[in-house]
Parts: sequence; structure tokens; C-alpha cells
Amino acid sequence: MTAAISELSPSPRILMGPGPSDVHPRVLRAMATPLIGHLDPEFLTLMNETQQLLRYVFQTQNTLTFAVSGTGSAGMETCVVNLVEPGDRMVVCVNGVFGQRMVDVAQRAGAEVTVLERPWGDVFPLEQIREVLRQVRPKVLGIVHAETSTGACQPMDGLGELCHEFDTLLLVDTVTSLAGIPVAVDRWQADAVYSGTQKCLSAPPGLAPVTFSPRAVETIHRRKHRVQSWYLDVSLVERYWGQERFYHHTAPITMIYALREALRLVQEEGLENRFARHQLHHRALRAGLAALGIRYAAVEGHQLPQLNAVWIPAGADDAITRKMLLERFGIEIGGGLGEFKGKVWRIGLMGYSCRANNVLLFLAALEQCLLAQGLRFPEGAAVAAANRVYRESGFATAG
Amino acid sequence: MTAAISELSPSPRILMGPGPSDVHPRVLRAMATPLIGHLDPEFLTLMNETQQLLRYVFQTQNTLTFAVSGTGSAGMETCVVNLVEPGDRMVVCVNGVFGQRMVDVAQRAGAEVTVLERPWGDVFPLEQIREVLRQVRPKVLGIVHAETSTGACQPMDGLGELCHEFDTLLLVDTVTSLAGIPVAVDRWQADAVYSGTQKCLSAPPGLAPVTFSPRAVETIHRRKHRVQSWYLDVSLVERYWGQERFYHHTAPITMIYALREALRLVQEEGLENRFARHQLHHRALRAGLAALGIRYAAVEGHQLPQLNAVWIPAGADDAITRKMLLERFGIEIGGGLGEFKGKVWRIGLMGYSCRANNVLLFLAALEQCLLAQGLRFPEGAAVAAANRVYRESGFATAG
Repeated sequence: MTAAISELSPSPRILMGPGPSDVHPRVLRAMATPLIGHLDPEFLTLMNETQQLLRYVFQTQNTLTFAVSGTGSAGMETCVVNLVEPGDRMVVCVNGVFGQRMVDVAQRAGAEVTVLERPWGDVFPLEQIREVLRQVRPKVLGIVHAETSTGACQPMDGLGELCHEFDTLLLVDTVTSLAGIPVAVDRWQADAVYSGTQKCLSAPPGLAPVTFSPRAVETIHRRKHRVQSWYLDVSLVERYWGQERFYHHTAPITMIYALREALRLVQEEGLENRFARHQLHHRALRAGLAALGIRYAAVEGHQLPQLNAVWIPAGADDAITRKMLLERFGIEIGGGLGEFKGKVWRIGLMGYSCRANNVLLFLAALEQCLLAQGLRFPEGAAVAAANRVYRESGFATAG
Repeated sequence: MTAAISELSPSPRILMGPGPSDVHPRVLRAMATPLIGHLDPEFLTLMNETQQLLRYVFQTQNTLTFAVSGTGSAGMETCVVNLVEPGDRMVVCVNGVFGQRMVDVAQRAGAEVTVLERPWGDVFPLEQIREVLRQVRPKVLGIVHAETSTGACQPMDGLGELCHEFDTLLLVDTVTSLAGIPVAVDRWQADAVYSGTQKCLSAPPGLAPVTFSPRAVETIHRRKHRVQSWYLDVSLVERYWGQERFYHHTAPITMIYALREALRLVQEEGLENRFARHQLHHRALRAGLAALGIRYAAVEGHQLPQLNAVWIPAGADDAITRKMLLERFGIEIGGGLGEFKGKVWRIGLMGYSCRANNVLLFLAALEQCLLAQGLRFPEGAAVAAANRVYRESGFATAG
């Protein structure tokens, strides 16, 4: 017999890191709903509805749109291992941790990988990509839309057309972007796109929404080798999510409940309103940080509103500041990853976490943490700057 | 804009199929708990506690015991792809769907697979296994403890010793057995064991508890090739679940809440009491089914108490009966899989679903469904037979 384990009672947190974000109370409530079976006709209807809502947020008509039964990284692996066969050429654009991860995943899948690099925080110009496509003529080009390690937003216009000019499939990581900034799968002409539930969708982590273009589906159906992963084999999974309803593995029912509810919230708000909300609170946060002299790590003009990666200001200790935020204020922000470890903070304003209350409280708390460490700036300046944005934007008007 | 999707409102169900089973209200409530981050010190404590409880139900001291971020099949794939390298010999014992699945997974991982077969519903005698080990001398032997497609329970005594005599690692599927019947990982000398959360643990599907012996860990650390799956690479995952707490992928936080609570319930009940409960209600169900002339598909003496696979009686229509049970009584039972499709019903009494109320109600409802289809038997006989078991066992005594 092992020692008794006490009741579940985690401290209240405000999740302003790189994900998970705060989960909406309606999503939490959905997760307390008693289960029905994964082959129950009612569950199949819930799956259809979830797919319909996913097509809405992905802005796609793709039939093969569903949720992989794993986290965002399982979504990445699903896209890679289904498109790539041993010996296939793949180009991966690397300007942060998640591009690096894609290289690793692709190599394990037997791809002959060419790495295209940019400095962390930077993005890829179309001409650089054209050049590598011309030289390598890969089967797949992989790129990260919203690089969670740097806060950089990759411009997507023209990329799909460019890839198809070279008969290359476009694979896009939208883990941090989906439902926070526009992800226009069909307009982008993207062929395989994956995301996660715990970022701007504000559901718990555990599912990876994915979508495949007809071109990608055709490629998968023409494969010469079986997909190396049985669990992630899209040609099997699509028989369960599609008309056939053929049992593959037991769907994570409660997580589907959560995703469906989170997607309903997106639909009720409307994508455009949701994007505007992310921009507004980003501007307020940004103004507040600027008042403290804090600068962004990603290049100007390509900074994600939902993931604010900023240089840790001189005089502030990374660990001390984050510990103080967590323990005194219950606020979680993220530290740096990889080469940004110890240099960058990642402040998330994702989905339900993206609210004026969080921006103002965070700035007030951050002022306190920095003052405690001896940094000097006009006290109250950060909050005042953010409030000014809210006032001028019309967000906060009396009466 | 897509059409509005209505509020989540599934019909109440009694889950008596092959899983998911009914989830305990305390587990549902745990899932409505607001999230904390996957690197929050408090979450790391919850992970430690979950591991401690998993060791208790697996009856093991194995350090490397954790929950894979996927369903039971992801657990199977994790065990296989980490132990097997391309060209390695593996023997898989096949007497049902899940043995077949393991063959598929192992072949995709590049193993040279030898299939050892028994008729569906039967189990493997030690001597047959000794013979194949002697001939093949495989790196890994894979076997299913509780074959969910047939209801057969594989005897495990002596199997670990036998495997190690041939320097073979023993890989065991306990998806349907864990926390319902004894799973004694250390006593069995099993090297890699996986399970699922939605069977006798009565949590929602979505995680796969796994445990690896020191011998298995050593094998993994000595690998020549990287594991083909980045997501399921145990040498990476163990750095997150172990002392290092190195970020690998975002843990499915809410599912960990659920698993931890489900394990607490197991601990409170005690493994021995839990096993006895599964036996008792199985005996009651079995007596009731016998009174209707319904026979078990698995061989005598090797029938799982928690998964009662029975031949569909002559005169009963598979689809009509299951539809009637679902629509009139809200009761879900499972149909047959593979070669048992249309021939077998699978009646689960797993975890929280394993209760007298469910047994009695199911038998009463089944009588009704069969009578409606013209079958004849002494009306009330099934319920009476089950009640007799409860009375004689001392479960139901007045006062």
C-alpha cells in the first residue's frame, strides 16, 4: 500500500505563458459531462460538429479535418509521418525550437532533410524559400506560422502558390496561431496544418487539430510504404472520423467535449472579433512593457499578439521574477527555450487569457517584481500606458 | 460562418461495453478543475503522485512508470517502438484483435515479426511459448493479458522467467486488466507493460499508463537508432517525468487530474477489494446470462470478469438488441470485433461500471429485448439467478 494522496486542490493560477492558457468555465463544465461511448451515434454527431467547427477556425473546406488524439507535437508528427516516406526530400524552415523539432521528427521518419535557417526572432522571406525549393525540389516544405519560442509570425502570403510551383506540399505549424490570428488554410493553399488545443483555443492540452488538403490526401493514398506509426496513420484514422466510422482507437471523449465547447465559444465570438481582441490586448500589453523599457525579441512588424516574447530587462533575474509572479500573484509566464533560455520571457495572451484584467494585473505585478529587484522606472507607468490604449481604443469608455 | 452548434447535452448512458466505462463523479469533478501549467511546481508534484499511484496499481517498483499522452494504443506503440529496432526479432502472441494490432505496430517499427497463434477465445500454454522462444530467440515477446476482443485472460505465471531464460523482453498489454484483475508487473517479471485509462480505472480515454523494468530501460538506453517516433520516445519523455523536468511536450493536464483522481479511488478501495468486487458482479452477471442460455466465448477457466464476451443467442439480432438496449434503456454494450463481429456481445463490468445496479438492470433489460424478439425462457430467470448470487455471497443481506 502506498501513502494516501490528498484531494486534488491546485492553487488558482492566471496562465499567461506560452500555453496552456486559462480554460473558459464553460469548457471546464463540459469536461465534467458524463461520457458516452466512442461509437455511440450521439458521439458520432459530436465528432461531425467538431469537424465542422474546426473547418471554420482553419478557414478551410478540407474534408479531412479532425483532432489527433495527442498534443500539438503529435499533430506535427502526424503531418510529417503521413506525408513523408523514407528517402523523401523535405525542407524545414528553422528559426526557433519548433522548427528544430520538425527537423528531428522528419529525420526519424526517414526524410532527407534540408534545413533552411534564419536567426531566432526573424522570419523567412519568400525569395529565400524560392531559392531552396529550386535547388532541392522537396516533396514537403515545413514551416512554423507562429514560432512559440521567439514570438515571430511568419508571413504566409504566396507561400502555397510558390510551393506548388515546385510540386512541393506545404506543411504548416499553427499550434500557437489558430484562433488567435488568421489561419487561412485554403487561402494559403496549405496542404497539411496542425495545431494544439491549449493555446488560443483555450481548451486543455491533449488534442491536435489537423487538416489535410485534397492534394495531401491524394499523396497519402498513393504511399508506397505503410506509415511508420499505426496510431497516427491518417488512412486508418480517417475511416473513423469519416463516413465509415470504423473503429481505430478509442477517441478521447472528454477532450472532444472540451474542444467542441471551446470551438463553440470561438464561433459565438466570431473569428474577426477574436482576432481584433488579441490585437487590442497585445497593444495594451506592449505599451505597458515599453513604458518599462522592455523590448520584443521578434523582429518589428512580425510580432505575434498572443505570444509576447521579450528580452528580460537588465537588472532583473529570470527565475526570481517568474517565481515572484507565480507565488505572490498566481501569474504564470514562460521562460525562454533553447538559445533564448534565461534571456527571454514569453507572455501569453491567448484565447480566454487574453483579457484587459490580465494585462493590467500582470503589468502591475511586474512593476512590483522589478521594483523589488531594484529596477527603476516611473512607478505606475506600465499600467498607465496600457490604460491609455484601452481608453483610446474605445474599449473603456464611461457609461 | 458555419451553422450554430447547440449546447453539449449527450443522453445519459450506462457504459457496459468494452470501454469507456462509466466515469466516477469524483473524476468528472476533478476534470472541471482550473488548469495549472505543465511546468508549475505544483503540477510536478501531481505528476509524482500519479506515478506513485501507478506503481501501486501496476504492483511494481519500476522508476520509469508514467502515463503516455495518448490512448491505450499509443501505449502499445510506445512500448514497441522503444524496445524494437529495425531488424530485431519479435514474437507476438495472437488470439484476438489486439494481438493482431501489435503485429501491425511491430512490423511498422521494422521488427522481424513471428506470429504465434491460438484460436480466438483461447490462451497460450507456457510450453507453446517456450517452443517459439527456443526457435526464434526474439528480442521481445508481446502478449495480451486481457484480450478485449474475446474476453480471454492469459495466465502470466512463469512467463517472465521463461522469457528471460532466452534473453527475451516480456511486453504485456494490460489495457483491459489493470485495476480489474491482478496485474503484478514485478512478480510477473514483465519488462514493458501498457494500459489505458478508460477500462477498469474508469477515467476517460486519453492516457496510457506504462511501466518499464530496469532491464527494459537499459535496452532503451543502449539503442543504436533513434526511436522512430519523437512523440513517444521514452528517452525524451523520461526527462520530463523524471528528476530533470525537461520540457518535452505539453502534458495533457486535465487528463492527469482525472487519472490521479481515478487512481486515488482505486487506492481508497484497495486492490484486493477491487478485484473481489469485479469477481462478484461477474459471477452474478454470469449466472443471469446462464439462465438465458447464453454462453461465454472464451475458454472455461480463462474468462475475464470485467469483459464478458458471450455468443449472441440464436434468434436474437445483434444490431436490434444493442440498439434497443441503447435507445430504450441507455445501456451500451459492445458488439464483436474482427472474426467475432456479429457473433459476440461484449458486456463490460469495469471499474465504476461494475456494480450490482448495472448487473440487475442490464439483465432485466436484456430479458425484455430478447422477449421482444421472440426468444423464450422463464421470464425473470436472469434477474433471479443474479440476485441469488448476491444473496448467497452476503452482498445483499437484510438489516
